[in-house]
Amino acid sequence: MTEDAKPNILFIMCDQLRWDYLSCNGHPTLKTPNIDRLAEQGVLFERCYVQSPVCGPSRASTYSGRYVSSHGVTWNGVPFPVGEWTMGDYLSRAGYRVAVAGKTHIVPDRAGLERIGRPVTTPEGRLHGQGHIEPFDRDDGIHTDVFLEHGPRPRYSSWLQAQGYEGNNPWHDYANSVETPEGDVISGWQMRSAPYPARVPADHSETAYFTDRAMQFIEETGDRPWLLHLSYIKPHWPYVAPAPYHALYCAADILPAVRSDAEREAAHPIAKAFMDMEPGKSFSRDEVREAVIPAYMGLIKQVDDELGRLFAWLTETGRAENTVIVFTSDHGDYLGDHWMGEKELFHDASARVPLIIMDPRACTDATRGRRVAALTEAIDLVPTFLDLAGLPPDDQRLEGRSLTPFLTGSEIGDWRKMVFSELDYAFYGARLTLGRGPGDARLAMLFDGRYKYVYSVGYRPQLFDLEADPSELNDLGALPEQARRCEDFRAALLDRYITLRHRATESDSSVNARTARETDLGIHIGRWK
Amino acid sequence: MTEDAKPNILFIMCDQLRWDYLSCNGHPTLKTPNIDRLAEQGVLFERCYVQSPVCGPSRASTYSGRYVSSHGVTWNGVPFPVGEWTMGDYLSRAGYRVAVAGKTHIVPDRAGLERIGRPVTTPEGRLHGQGHIEPFDRDDGIHTDVFLEHGPRPRYSSWLQAQGYEGNNPWHDYANSVETPEGDVISGWQMRSAPYPARVPADHSETAYFTDRAMQFIEETGDRPWLLHLSYIKPHWPYVAPAPYHALYCAADILPAVRSDAEREAAHPIAKAFMDMEPGKSFSRDEVREAVIPAYMGLIKQVDDELGRLFAWLTETGRAENTVIVFTSDHGDYLGDHWMGEKELFHDASARVPLIIMDPRACTDATRGRRVAALTEAIDLVPTFLDLAGLPPDDQRLEGRSLTPFLTGSEIGDWRKMVFSELDYAFYGARLTLGRGPGDARLAMLFDGRYKYVYSVGYRPQLFDLEADPSELNDLGALPEQARRCEDFRAALLDRYITLRHRATESDSSVNARTARETDLGIHIGRWK
Repeated sequence: MTEDAKPNILFIMCDQLRWDYLSCNGHPTLKTPNIDRLAEQGVLFERCYVQSPVCGPSRASTYSGRYVSSHGVTWNGVPFPVGEWTMGDYLSRAGYRVAVAGKTHIVPDRAGLERIGRPVTTPEGRLHGQGHIEPFDRDDGIHTDVFLEHGPRPRYSSWLQAQGYEGNNPWHDYANSVETPEGDVISGWQMRSAPYPARVPADHSETAYFTDRAMQFIEETGDRPWLLHLSYIKPHWPYVAPAPYHALYCAADILPAVRSDAEREAAHPIAKAFMDMEPGKSFSRDEVREAVIPAYMGLIKQVDDELGRLFAWLTETGRAENTVIVFTSDHGDYLGDHWMGEKELFHDASARVPLIIMDPRACTDATRGRRVAALTEAIDLVPTFLDLAGLPPDDQRLEGRSLTPFLTGSEIGDWRKMVFSELDYAFYGARLTLGRGPGDARLAMLFDGRYKYVYSVGYRPQLFDLEADPSELNDLGALPEQARRCEDFRAALLDRYITLRHRATESDSSVNARTARETDLGIHIGRWK
Repeated sequence: MTEDAKPNILFIMCDQLRWDYLSCNGHPTLKTPNIDRLAEQGVLFERCYVQSPVCGPSRASTYSGRYVSSHGVTWNGVPFPVGEWTMGDYLSRAGYRVAVAGKTHIVPDRAGLERIGRPVTTPEGRLHGQGHIEPFDRDDGIHTDVFLEHGPRPRYSSWLQAQGYEGNNPWHDYANSVETPEGDVISGWQMRSAPYPARVPADHSETAYFTDRAMQFIEETGDRPWLLHLSYIKPHWPYVAPAPYHALYCAADILPAVRSDAEREAAHPIAKAFMDMEPGKSFSRDEVREAVIPAYMGLIKQVDDELGRLFAWLTETGRAENTVIVFTSDHGDYLGDHWMGEKELFHDASARVPLIIMDPRACTDATRGRRVAALTEAIDLVPTFLDLAGLPPDDQRLEGRSLTPFLTGSEIGDWRKMVFSELDYAFYGARLTLGRGPGDARLAMLFDGRYKYVYSVGYRPQLFDLEADPSELNDLGALPEQARRCEDFRAALLDRYITLRHRATESDSSVNARTARETDLGIHIGRWK
């Protein structure tokens, strides 16, 4: 992969973008030509799953290359352990400047850092608190009054003030609030605001702002190799789009909800508890879907337009030819499918994400436009980045696999048979509804390409046959004839857990070198003479 | 528990002492009156199991209060992760001086410490490298020439030199070598040396030395509350005892080997691979058992005598009345049982340890002499220490439970139903024999008080009914009529793994406080108006 040494890496992530809300992934009315072109010039991975369908844990896995139970950041706001490494650690050692423009959701392990004498007030502590990713313009995308009161003001918020937007919280009052034709102002926290335009023009919106910041970072960095995580805030809620994107789509453009009455009536206790939370109840109403989904589509369309602008700029400035572009998301959005809103559970609407990698270098010419059906996981990105940067593979912490063989068209060999994703739902009202404690509100999913198995501590499993039932409407988990299959999945899940990289402070190479070699140390065990 | 605020804690651990090699645990020929008296005055826990039957991982669990898969120190020499906390962290915050005289087997996470700017050359890095336990006289008990060349010289080694023992390695040449009546010197690394006396008198042996060091620590510490981990090197190999202990017992005093031909012939592949390693082959010979076991018993007898001396000194100096004494071991020793030597696997000879806690304070008078049959684990000690020190229980990292209710005689409530122990056998020749990789050489044991279930990745399970077969000679794991029971144990094992405290950077209390409380932060999800 290293014919051109150290390509730059533009790692683009949308927040809450469903895998199927791109025209290259089959959306019939939402056209995303710039992202489609990326797929035509690169490789599109059709079946990529995140390690947890929630921002915080999904991103902690994507950045660390490890499963959620390995790094322990099981939900939003859970501190990133002082012992965990990320793409920032690996690539900075290869001379890369690794930075973020936008969201990471990493929270510092303050107690762990203070204990070792490196509180977040020190350079090392601060860097760790950022997941070893330089906060060029870190912004987790939610600037509530409470956050502004207790935390630093994100640059975007100050920038809006500098543009003349008044008040303490222009992010809320302008960028994420709307104005009706009658002149009424509605907060983006109320989804009924979705049909109306944001109170900022498109070029003052978060999506345009962070695209500009990406260009500024790239210009500023010059010739040093870089990995920029361009981490868009949208189409995540508040579902507020600036003109003209708020009005590009209408109710006639949205897809019908994927759901059935039987599904709701026979719902698994966990699914039922999530259906009964406010997002599920709201998105079960057509009025809500018809208001919100066009805005959601408009936000995606804006991302596509902004990426068109960014890609053209990279070409004009001669940077395109040595910049590998990765495009993905941190999880999806139910949008009313399966009687749910938000994400969290493991239907494709929630756990499956788009993934496109475009390597402009000649070594990948053979695969341009290829669509890969192999099962991939978000944790495959860090090993891929190591590979792109010419670093040796890691056999100590990383649990994903490099995707570069799919780019070069080389022999893949024995690829993974199942993807694995987890949820710690201790933080949801659903956990209280179900009467579970904070320590055993755990779900785990295995998908082998046909059957999707969801294990729930304390409940029967869920099972979906995506070949016979691609919409995942029929939960087979309670059927006696599926009991054997569920047992087999449960056995596979145990092997998955028992063989996680618990031993993260010593590499497999080191273990191999130490195996049965006590005598090298002068230690003789069980010898008689 | 805090009627006398902050009792001192004398935490005594032997290395490789089997649970049943004490007269208070039923050994017929080995008399240990001082340890027996501790049991008469305190509480003896009859069924305590370690979290891994090998020094390094067992101790990492005992000191951290966490299961092996939670802390990741899966074997000897695996670095102790920079994010893991120990009894030293907790008790030092309560004003205790927490130190060790003897072995801990903790290895620093050098890469993790350097990454955060606290290499082992800094105070914080050095402290972490010691598991946050002050190395008053840290000594892992194996001073080979290789270790002396690459590491610091342990104080005991220098002390022997100061006593006039010549050469670079008096630990080996004198304390752990013997001299025959014919004047031949034999290294302790050859087990045929066991019947002969060490080349040092008893008061120059490791056991006497560390007992003296314990007294020096206690005197030096004065009135400040302390936890001293008196961590004896013996009866761990080299099986070399000083006079008169080398000759106190003879072949007639040893127990017959617990093993059967059927057991060897029908051995599970894992058991077979361990039987075939040198310790197993050696200890299968009567000549070896008859030479080694009397020396092993002599070493235990010496520990008992030295503890008698220490306990008397505590009484004479008025310290006994405010010193809680804990006595245990890090694992057992097969000594030829089940055709094996050493430890590693999960028979009681290996995974079960003695545990006695004597709290001299009036609050435990009601339970003196009590024998507790409840299932306990080595990870219960840290929560017990927190309780003794008057600290609140930890609901973030610790996975054990305080044993103080058994001491005070208070209501126990719902106690654990199973003990859990693990082995990463990647480092053993057995792994190569079996042709497994470094990442999937994993075993896990669950014992419910009657059935002991051993799960092996890639092989059938093992199952023993200790009610019908207390000697664990009949592996029922392959019997069709036990298939259902094995399935149930496997299901319990999955729940155990999925609910480990992966989320170690946030407490359950914090999770409970955050559950379904987004609106407190000004975040409104799925709201329509």
